[in-house]
Amino acid sequence: MGVRDVSKRILVGQKLRSTQLGETLLPKRIALPVFASDALSSVAYAPDEVFIMLGVAGVAAYSWSWKIALLVALVMLTVVASYRQTVHAYPSGGGDYEVATVNLGRTAGMTVASALLVDYVLTVAVSISSGADYAAAALPALRGHEVLVASVAVTVLAALNLRGVRESGTFFAFPTYFFMAAILGMCAWGLFRLLTGSLPMAESADLQVVPQPGWEQPLTTLGLVFLLSRAFSSGCAALTGVEAISNGVPAFRKPKSRNAATTLLLLGGIAVTMIVSVVVLAYQMGVRYVDPDDIERLRTATGAALPADYHQRVVIAQIAHAVFDHFTPGFYFVVVMTGIVLVLAANTAFNGFPVLGSILAQDGLAPRQLGARGDRLAYSNGIVFLAVMAIVLIVAFDAQTTRLIQLYIVGVFVSFNLSQLGMIRHWTRLLGTETDPAARRSMMRSRAINTFGLGMTAVVLVIVLITKFLAGAWITILAMTCFFAIMQGISRHYAKVASELSVAEEDQVLPTRVHAIVLVSKVHKPTMRALAYSKAARPNVLEAVMVDSDPALTARVLEEWDDRGIDVPLKVLYSPYREIIKPIVDYTRSVRDANPRGVVAVYIPEYVVGRWWEQLLHNQTALRLKGRLLFMPGVMVISVPYQLQSSTLAKERVDRELAKPRPGDLRRGVISKPPDGPQ
Amino acid sequence: MGVRDVSKRILVGQKLRSTQLGETLLPKRIALPVFASDALSSVAYAPDEVFIMLGVAGVAAYSWSWKIALLVALVMLTVVASYRQTVHAYPSGGGDYEVATVNLGRTAGMTVASALLVDYVLTVAVSISSGADYAAAALPALRGHEVLVASVAVTVLAALNLRGVRESGTFFAFPTYFFMAAILGMCAWGLFRLLTGSLPMAESADLQVVPQPGWEQPLTTLGLVFLLSRAFSSGCAALTGVEAISNGVPAFRKPKSRNAATTLLLLGGIAVTMIVSVVVLAYQMGVRYVDPDDIERLRTATGAALPADYHQRVVIAQIAHAVFDHFTPGFYFVVVMTGIVLVLAANTAFNGFPVLGSILAQDGLAPRQLGARGDRLAYSNGIVFLAVMAIVLIVAFDAQTTRLIQLYIVGVFVSFNLSQLGMIRHWTRLLGTETDPAARRSMMRSRAINTFGLGMTAVVLVIVLITKFLAGAWITILAMTCFFAIMQGISRHYAKVASELSVAEEDQVLPTRVHAIVLVSKVHKPTMRALAYSKAARPNVLEAVMVDSDPALTARVLEEWDDRGIDVPLKVLYSPYREIIKPIVDYTRSVRDANPRGVVAVYIPEYVVGRWWEQLLHNQTALRLKGRLLFMPGVMVISVPYQLQSSTLAKERVDRELAKPRPGDLRRGVISKPPDGPQ
Repeated sequence: MGVRDVSKRILVGQKLRSTQLGETLLPKRIALPVFASDALSSVAYAPDEVFIMLGVAGVAAYSWSWKIALLVALVMLTVVASYRQTVHAYPSGGGDYEVATVNLGRTAGMTVASALLVDYVLTVAVSISSGADYAAAALPALRGHEVLVASVAVTVLAALNLRGVRESGTFFAFPTYFFMAAILGMCAWGLFRLLTGSLPMAESADLQVVPQPGWEQPLTTLGLVFLLSRAFSSGCAALTGVEAISNGVPAFRKPKSRNAATTLLLLGGIAVTMIVSVVVLAYQMGVRYVDPDDIERLRTATGAALPADYHQRVVIAQIAHAVFDHFTPGFYFVVVMTGIVLVLAANTAFNGFPVLGSILAQDGLAPRQLGARGDRLAYSNGIVFLAVMAIVLIVAFDAQTTRLIQLYIVGVFVSFNLSQLGMIRHWTRLLGTETDPAARRSMMRSRAINTFGLGMTAVVLVIVLITKFLAGAWITILAMTCFFAIMQGISRHYAKVASELSVAEEDQVLPTRVHAIVLVSKVHKPTMRALAYSKAARPNVLEAVMVDSDPALTARVLEEWDDRGIDVPLKVLYSPYREIIKPIVDYTRSVRDANPRGVVAVYIPEYVVGRWWEQLLHNQTALRLKGRLLFMPGVMVISVPYQLQSSTLAKERVDRELAKPRPGDLRRGVISKPPDGPQ
Repeated sequence: MGVRDVSKRILVGQKLRSTQLGETLLPKRIALPVFASDALSSVAYAPDEVFIMLGVAGVAAYSWSWKIALLVALVMLTVVASYRQTVHAYPSGGGDYEVATVNLGRTAGMTVASALLVDYVLTVAVSISSGADYAAAALPALRGHEVLVASVAVTVLAALNLRGVRESGTFFAFPTYFFMAAILGMCAWGLFRLLTGSLPMAESADLQVVPQPGWEQPLTTLGLVFLLSRAFSSGCAALTGVEAISNGVPAFRKPKSRNAATTLLLLGGIAVTMIVSVVVLAYQMGVRYVDPDDIERLRTATGAALPADYHQRVVIAQIAHAVFDHFTPGFYFVVVMTGIVLVLAANTAFNGFPVLGSILAQDGLAPRQLGARGDRLAYSNGIVFLAVMAIVLIVAFDAQTTRLIQLYIVGVFVSFNLSQLGMIRHWTRLLGTETDPAARRSMMRSRAINTFGLGMTAVVLVIVLITKFLAGAWITILAMTCFFAIMQGISRHYAKVASELSVAEEDQVLPTRVHAIVLVSKVHKPTMRALAYSKAARPNVLEAVMVDSDPALTARVLEEWDDRGIDVPLKVLYSPYREIIKPIVDYTRSVRDANPRGVVAVYIPEYVVGRWWEQLLHNQTALRLKGRLLFMPGVMVISVPYQLQSSTLAKERVDRELAKPRPGDLRRGVISKPPDGPQ
């Protein structure tokens, strides 16, 4: 930035600031629930997936469950350790997308962005589908209507976000803490009963699970490896949402990065504790859980089919039901809180999506109006898009969490991988210039962590791709490809426009003269104001022009023009068929053609009304005329507004609209306050 | 119009005219089919209604049918004679509405307008429903699907008119003349066979019609009067559409009024001949026709019920079938031509509706954008409205012409009456000043005709109201009341705005100074152009302003500003949360507040792109900012457009749109030609 003439650059706005936007950054105790609901909520469905996948080979395979849980925990802790590096290195909230773009280039960044966009849709679909399972577990009346329940829930969430409901810390804090208390309390009580030998068996403990054809015991080694791989990759659903904190660093209190890293560690610890405890308890209690599509593989102890109305409750509900066998409120508390946290996790997507959109917009990969605090209309389109896609998935997959999970994990691990790879590059690049031994050591350690993370997540990604591709991951990859292509198209378009707009020398040539035309339809206040303003601008030529669309009206205007002694010449344009726009456009062009180096200033008097039906009754011609004149080079179009009394209504509406919260504000550290008083 | 300074008023546009709009007025031989299709098409259903109403008392009452036809013919000729006066006195095409407004005041005019609006909807519903009957008569496969056929037909008509299909004389001429030839040929051949004693009986001649309960013969005198009144008022459906010519005088060749009057007489003659011939033939051939809802009243000669799949063909189809018993193509020609003319009649409504709308708009009773050649969007709304209302009626009344007719006639006769009353006032007023005895005689004669017409139509209106009110006319009256109330509301609103806008003395005060602000987002061609234009306008203060939504971008712009040595000071507005609009609005207000008597000129550089998706990617902020600034007094908003290469696409689209034909053009004597070449 040049400093030669800094004097002319006044930073205006300090005085505006307090009137306009407040700033409320999040302490760790609030940030944890805000950013953790997505990651923690996956404990609601990840254990179920492990048991489903293992159960393919019958109950005997369940003995692997806790080992798989430990492996998932290990991956989780590795990923958490990796992201702790990220929040320190990239505190701006760009997260995986920024890491990949900066270190690996635009293509990698766009790949991550595509994966994240797909993930937002799936977060909504999976969380809400799982939430519908919990609702069905608590309220038998809902059983069999999960698709409807889930679709309605998505619609309600979308509606709330469209209305501009402000996210708040407390909104997340209470339910998320209650959820943690519920799950951890249940596990603690269950483990205590296990130690004291009083742990009851689950309601499904007496059932048999018939292996799928071809998966009968004993398995071949290859079969076992594939079985465990599938169970492990499904269990990795527990990792979804871990990256949320890396997108939310700007919302933390200072020191932002350190607080974010601490919160991340806390999140990892809680998540790992939950998932391992739940799996161990479920195993100890003999929970049986099969794919809801395959419910007939569940048999009674005698091998008979179950009654047709048998409802298989989700794993946590089965545990809660058994553990709190003498305390029903405990069961309801666990189930209800889990359901609520799943809804919060879905809401996270509605808030994260616009944040990502605005980052992409700033990089020219998404429509500009998504950028910065963005255009409410653009946001609304995004929210509607998200909701519609989620509902399509819910309906297409019958609200079955198990089937949706197959689509979910691949996107998550694509971004994990690229992000880790980016971080390794980052540290390597820094190491190239860093000389301080202490700093170098720290960087080396960070790079080692990320390298380990990459190795781990790469293995998982390969396992996921192999085990899930045909089961649904191909849909995710297809959707990612579409998003990628759209982003590339938008990016190319902006680049083309930018090159067309770049300044050449001849652009500084001044027009020689200004020919001003004031459009007249009647002699009324807006016309008089436009005349006054146009005179004040002292153009080289000033004339008023009216279209003779109605001879009687024209005569009246001419007469009034004389009577009032208006000293601007009034030209009448002939219009044989009462057209308004074409005569004006033609006349403007003829003026412009006569003075190719001059500029034509067209003054349009407008009056501003307030109510929507009033807007229908006015100003349509002015609007269309402006739209047409914008295509003519050498013309500037000047709107001279005249505010009718009712216009205050519309102004207030517009101001309210501008001041409304935007989804994602909380995550960006923006909390806008209502405007204080009239402007 | 003052002549003091006529020199400054140049009528521009003569040279434009030839390039823009051609003028093709209609000779009588083309005008007749254009304006007559509506009126003549009613011969397709009016005779049926007469037989249905008489048949309530059994076949015996059919002997009244030809007398009722003669009475209808008498009313028709009277109405035609009356309208011949109108086209001479009011050649501007305002028709009944103008006559009523000028002579009886605004309330009467609005009543007529309401009646006409309702009539347009009913013209579509009745004509298309009747057309569906003819389609079913010719194609047995369509029987029982009349509602669907009619709804699809309305939708197709609406779509054609939305696309901007130009009405043309030939479009009407061939089918209408074929229709006349078909009906008149059929009647002539039938009457010839009647005279030669070889007239065959109709297919339904052997059937019995069971009288409705309470209507058995012999009837009381009161019963007979009521029976005949109902039959007569239903037969008066033949009069619908007669007034069309009085709305189309401007489309005739000169001498317009005389040609219109001659055409009207011709129309009357043909219509009367048709209706009387059809009724006489039907009576002689023993046609039996009952309300399709009451089909079980039709019995075989032995009194047995008819087979369930019996299809009662419309009267003209029965006649054609019998008369052309050895020449099947004759039958199909009659039925197909009648069906086509019914569709043309419906199309008439789609073209007449916007014409009425533009007249109402000029009088401030309808949204202004309907006025003159009007706004395509407004037209589209009108067409969609018309189509939706017609479909609602078709579905609600099961596409049964008989039931829709009950709604139809009341509106027609309300406008006949008010128009006649207006004409009497008109002549009386002229007689008050006219002294030339010949002219006075002529006026007296005209007044006598209109008085006779009023007497006749008033009686019919009373009969219609009494016999049809409960059968459906109340719906019409309710709808008319709604339209009336809306027009009154619009009229009041415009009056209120006009009084708020009327010029006071202080409106001529000039602003003391112009403070120009050029908004800068980047240093690119649009910005440079806006700077150049703003400098050319030589404001008292000129400054560039940018919002600091992205510090890196701001620094880049500031640097480029220096490098290029741009000599306009650049102010940076602080925006803590990257909002764009609010800082600019606030800054503009602060400038304005510092100079309450000055004016703030805000220059917005815009670039104009061409494709719809490009528009999604650009300029949304400029648009919203303009929308917001219009609410601020003392501010003018200046759009400085920069046309990107792709903008030519959009310009061509807009020009095509402007040049497209509007529905109703033909009726107003406007035939626009496509624009000749690029601008």
